[in-house]
Amino acid sequence: MNMRAEWEGFNPKGLWTSEVNVRDFIQANYTQYSGDESFLAGPTAATSKLFDELQKLQKAEHNKKCVGLDGKERSGVLDLDTDVVTSLTAHQAGYICPEGKELEQVVGLQTDKPLKRAFMPYGGIRMAEQCLEMYGYKPNPELHRVFTEYHKTHSDAVFEVYTPEIRKARKAHILTGLPDTYGRGRIVGDYRRVALYGIDYLIQCKEQDKANCGNGTMTDDVIRLREEISEQIKALKGIKAMAAIYGYDISNPAKNAKEAFQWLYFGYLAAIKTQNGAAMSVGRISTFLDCYIERDLKKGILTEEKAQELVDHIVMKFRMVRFARIESYNQLFSGDPIWATLEVAGLGQDGRDMVTKNDYRFLHTLENMGPSPEPNMTVLYSKRLPENFRRYAAKISIDTSSIQYENDDVMRPIWGDDYSICCCVSATQTGKEMQFFGARANLAKALLYAINGGKDEPAGLTPGVQVGPEFAPITSDYLDYDEVMRKYDAMLEWLASLYVNTLNAIHYMHDKYYYEAAELSLEDTNLKRTFATGIAGFSHVVDSLSAIKYAKVKVIRDESGLAKDFEIEGDFPRYGQDDDRADEIATWLLKTFMSKIEKNHTYRNAEPTTSILTITSNVVYGKATGALPDGRKAGEPFSPGANPSYGAETKGLIKSLNSVAKVPYKYALDGISNTQTINPNALGHDENERISNLVNVLDGYFDQGAHHLNVNVFGVEKLKDCQAHPDKPEYANFTVRVSGYAVRFINLTKEQQDDVIARTCHASL
Amino acid sequence: MNMRAEWEGFNPKGLWTSEVNVRDFIQANYTQYSGDESFLAGPTAATSKLFDELQKLQKAEHNKKCVGLDGKERSGVLDLDTDVVTSLTAHQAGYICPEGKELEQVVGLQTDKPLKRAFMPYGGIRMAEQCLEMYGYKPNPELHRVFTEYHKTHSDAVFEVYTPEIRKARKAHILTGLPDTYGRGRIVGDYRRVALYGIDYLIQCKEQDKANCGNGTMTDDVIRLREEISEQIKALKGIKAMAAIYGYDISNPAKNAKEAFQWLYFGYLAAIKTQNGAAMSVGRISTFLDCYIERDLKKGILTEEKAQELVDHIVMKFRMVRFARIESYNQLFSGDPIWATLEVAGLGQDGRDMVTKNDYRFLHTLENMGPSPEPNMTVLYSKRLPENFRRYAAKISIDTSSIQYENDDVMRPIWGDDYSICCCVSATQTGKEMQFFGARANLAKALLYAINGGKDEPAGLTPGVQVGPEFAPITSDYLDYDEVMRKYDAMLEWLASLYVNTLNAIHYMHDKYYYEAAELSLEDTNLKRTFATGIAGFSHVVDSLSAIKYAKVKVIRDESGLAKDFEIEGDFPRYGQDDDRADEIATWLLKTFMSKIEKNHTYRNAEPTTSILTITSNVVYGKATGALPDGRKAGEPFSPGANPSYGAETKGLIKSLNSVAKVPYKYALDGISNTQTINPNALGHDENERISNLVNVLDGYFDQGAHHLNVNVFGVEKLKDCQAHPDKPEYANFTVRVSGYAVRFINLTKEQQDDVIARTCHASL
Repeated sequence: MNMRAEWEGFNPKGLWTSEVNVRDFIQANYTQYSGDESFLAGPTAATSKLFDELQKLQKAEHNKKCVGLDGKERSGVLDLDTDVVTSLTAHQAGYICPEGKELEQVVGLQTDKPLKRAFMPYGGIRMAEQCLEMYGYKPNPELHRVFTEYHKTHSDAVFEVYTPEIRKARKAHILTGLPDTYGRGRIVGDYRRVALYGIDYLIQCKEQDKANCGNGTMTDDVIRLREEISEQIKALKGIKAMAAIYGYDISNPAKNAKEAFQWLYFGYLAAIKTQNGAAMSVGRISTFLDCYIERDLKKGILTEEKAQELVDHIVMKFRMVRFARIESYNQLFSGDPIWATLEVAGLGQDGRDMVTKNDYRFLHTLENMGPSPEPNMTVLYSKRLPENFRRYAAKISIDTSSIQYENDDVMRPIWGDDYSICCCVSATQTGKEMQFFGARANLAKALLYAINGGKDEPAGLTPGVQVGPEFAPITSDYLDYDEVMRKYDAMLEWLASLYVNTLNAIHYMHDKYYYEAAELSLEDTNLKRTFATGIAGFSHVVDSLSAIKYAKVKVIRDESGLAKDFEIEGDFPRYGQDDDRADEIATWLLKTFMSKIEKNHTYRNAEPTTSILTITSNVVYGKATGALPDGRKAGEPFSPGANPSYGAETKGLIKSLNSVAKVPYKYALDGISNTQTINPNALGHDENERISNLVNVLDGYFDQGAHHLNVNVFGVEKLKDCQAHPDKPEYANFTVRVSGYAVRFINLTKEQQDDVIARTCHASL
Repeated sequence: MNMRAEWEGFNPKGLWTSEVNVRDFIQANYTQYSGDESFLAGPTAATSKLFDELQKLQKAEHNKKCVGLDGKERSGVLDLDTDVVTSLTAHQAGYICPEGKELEQVVGLQTDKPLKRAFMPYGGIRMAEQCLEMYGYKPNPELHRVFTEYHKTHSDAVFEVYTPEIRKARKAHILTGLPDTYGRGRIVGDYRRVALYGIDYLIQCKEQDKANCGNGTMTDDVIRLREEISEQIKALKGIKAMAAIYGYDISNPAKNAKEAFQWLYFGYLAAIKTQNGAAMSVGRISTFLDCYIERDLKKGILTEEKAQELVDHIVMKFRMVRFARIESYNQLFSGDPIWATLEVAGLGQDGRDMVTKNDYRFLHTLENMGPSPEPNMTVLYSKRLPENFRRYAAKISIDTSSIQYENDDVMRPIWGDDYSICCCVSATQTGKEMQFFGARANLAKALLYAINGGKDEPAGLTPGVQVGPEFAPITSDYLDYDEVMRKYDAMLEWLASLYVNTLNAIHYMHDKYYYEAAELSLEDTNLKRTFATGIAGFSHVVDSLSAIKYAKVKVIRDESGLAKDFEIEGDFPRYGQDDDRADEIATWLLKTFMSKIEKNHTYRNAEPTTSILTITSNVVYGKATGALPDGRKAGEPFSPGANPSYGAETKGLIKSLNSVAKVPYKYALDGISNTQTINPNALGHDENERISNLVNVLDGYFDQGAHHLNVNVFGVEKLKDCQAHPDKPEYANFTVRVSGYAVRFINLTKEQQDDVIARTCHASL
């Protein structure tokens, strides 16, 4: 490929003109910006009009009451498809307000109407039907027949191959949140490719890849990949047809910024029309799109107002993504999140920061259109980012609590300078990687299994059931550290193996029955695959082991001899107090678990990783887990992600952050999630002071090698008031960051609101 | 499992009462019979009435004219399903004549009406629809959508993964007849298990197998097998439900002979309701069923007349199996065959012959209900079989030309004493093996490619196209044996590799999209898998190489330099003349090809085998192949299977048989097919002499280690008369054995009739 007419004005340096290589394009073409936010423009009339419509729709959605076929009233869903199986081209064009569709600078909806949720049976017909029934819709019997008799769905296939052992572990919730009843998500297609290259060239490259796939020996792997490439090529053709429904021909590269936004969005739309993965992240698009805006600004064919309008409109679309979800999913991941995670900032491998005006524009959408959980705005942080930008991000955090920060300095050496964050905290090389998402293993419950000889504890979901191997239980009155460690090691060994093998089955079947052809058509054919396991109950295990080691822990047993509670005699160091005695146990735990994961065969030889991230599932996990030796009572929520336990952070925010910062990212490459809430007063007395202090906190935290921080800035009173008066207009979009994502507080369940309220709100640094 | 009430009267010796082991049951319970055929009974009134109905139906089918959507008139199909996707339970009960259904001792049809063909889209939706359109039926658009948009079908998947090289080889017909547009078949479920154990115990065993499948490590292989076992268990439940539609509860073992026939037939019915494999063989059921008949006869609850009625009725059902086939399939496998291959006789490992009265009864159906191509009656031959039986089989051959013979003495050491023949000549351990059927590679065309540097010959289907590798062609005027052998070796190496890899893709996709759950539910979970390649053009390559070696062969080239014809100067020995010089080339060719096949990776590590068997495809193969150095002209049919070439058998039948007998079965474990036609007068002057002579021919032939013989006894005049006057009533069921199966002569195409007429009809031994 030579320079194409559509690329006129771009710098051809690097490989991007002769191969699909968006990263090289960006590096050769982005325009750094170190100024402040004063250039930003407010919403245009079109934006205001559309956003107004969207708010009406969102309000209608929030207030819509449906009576499920089970007689239960539910709200939060505006409309659902029953008779159309979603696909790239199953729906006619849809608009926010059909009478004003020319206002929309970026068009395209998942279905034919805004906020109407599509029918997606491939992941599991029963789940897809449950979603309908929950809201009083009747499943189409003909489609039921098709997806039971003629075509198997992912979930059905997975349950067919599960062993009794897996089923027990799943039922006891020692393995939980598994993507066997929902899509695995965690794939970030490189949607920018559509804009930079146009569909036709992408098809041509995939045809070449197919020609080069295998040396003629048809092993299972080669056959599978050849079929996958064929599916990808079909998907690319489908994306083109989908765009044509909206009147666009995306065969060729985008010629200007408006087309670039539109083309890119069509790539993402293809993903969310065909897949309902837990996390449908957008990726690192800001700097890329800025190249087009800068070119148009230079040419004089775009103004800042119109540039901001493009950003506002694409962000509005990201705010409108909806999936039909089942009850148990909503319990795990509360508040209807879809993780349209979108990154700004970061540094290049050459040392230049990658902050552009567009990074400001994306953050500015939280001002133009108020706070919002989606897109999941993520700053790839480094203290080497321009101070103006760091301050602007801090300001938006303080105002909206809608931003998360991830440490570019620890990710860049591993993932390069074109990674995206999928889901909450998981870096993925854009267009070059997919994740086999693995939810999490409950390591706290595993500790109880070590004590109880593999039996589920009395407060567990399957009390007394032999879930784990029937190892000898601990029978002494007081827990002996060495004995506990020996038995815990053996139990972790069992759990890690069972966990990996469960995921192997899930991902084999996902590839077989619910392959992400559209997303992967926008990725390289020869992918890196990571196998993303996860840990729940992290802080509680660390504190429990510390209690056993440094204090005396007495076991309270029930009549059957199972440990049901613990009494701690004496004091012990806790994770979150910047005390090495506890923090070393944290590192030991992570490293040990990871090494046991690594021992196992992984599907497609994916590279195992792990995360310390629970999202809102900390509540569900906690419910299923008995009392722990750290003093946490049975059924109480876990602390989320890598957060220290409730009550452990007795030494202030900075000490707490220091503890978390010691957990080595190297052993948890899928991410270490930390969520903190700071009282505005703790940050300072005026905006300027607050911004400066927050920037200092971030600089100091990340400089130690910490990975992630969710920043909330509000007092607990606001949470309580919002819980009591959810209808106050000021709370309609009140957003809080929970473990790894953001959510409208009013959309959380009472239980989860209570959990957020219970978390430490730092009143001082 | 202990002795069950249903087994009372059977000998419990062996393992059959404690595991699924039909072989041990047979060995412990069969009753040898060395008497003659005088005990046999004629058709009962019910048999006559039903057979009369069936003949009317068959006549109506033969005469039914349909105008295809292409405007072409076709006949031979009575009715087709358009709106029902076949499954175990998709149809209501069907009967030969609904007003007399109590006459049917064995019930069950593939669809709701006799000879009505089911709609089977899983193998390929386009093929399934073509079958309808050929006969003027309109495909159901909703099902079209289901099997294109929602569910991929086998054929579509295979073509997606084919390489351009495979497509070219397929188009040129150097690889041909591949099961990529039809089901692979070649699986013989152990249908006897249904009768001996009942469905519930079989389910229980499969549940156990699933529990024992894998050690917990979920490799792709383990996951696949676990899913397959789940599918098998679903199928077993489906078979039970299917039987219930006919008013039978087959949960438990059959209690008497009538139930045993019925239960067993339900097993087979499950196969032919769900799969349209090329060969849907019945297997080795005769001796097994005799055990039930003998028990009932002893108990006095059955008479010989009623026993024969059971046999006649189940055979009638086998004669009624129909599949909707596409045009190209009919060209390859003419006359609507389905290979309901069914064995009688053979010896046990303990040296006892296994001939029972039932073996007589099955052969006797050809007298009670006249000759018939199906079931494909196969005698597992040994000269150690009782003389009475050998004579009776010979008599039926002479009268009906409906029997084939296969050498039990060469098969038993390899496959044991409970193998079945699948398709034509391929032994398979009943219930313990499945075949990945591979059609055949055209080794004669490969010889031309060796001469023409990989280009398709001028008379080929893709003349001049570089199909094979661009090796240096032969440019000399006269062929040099050493040069030809060197180049041929390299071309065979390429062809064998391409062939195996093509089959790998086909069978991977067949397992994925058209898994034979019902058939395999009646087989062991841990199967032996054979990879059945095949050879076409065998005798022509042998004779060509002999001509090049022992005579002088001049190449005639076209203007582009491609060899288009050959002139032979001098004489040379030919395969079929019992001349070691030619016959050694035959062995060399087979062994060399097989060793090249064996070099390659096979899907699921299946054990590679090969056959020398072309069925009726010898005509299609010949059409696509240019002139050969043995004097065969371009486009002329190949000789079928392992038969010597037309015109080569100048030294009489015995010499011809001797040549074929020298081809070692060891290197062609999938079978070596030989078809011979003998003029009745050549066999003798009266029936007794003819029988004796035919028995002598068989004894002598098989004693040399030959594998197979199709025996036709008629003169060429009869063939010519039948071709000229197909409507004479005596020709309605006139059956001839072609390569590996039997067919009604009137159902062959004109071309194929001409080919059969052209074959050597031995006028002397």
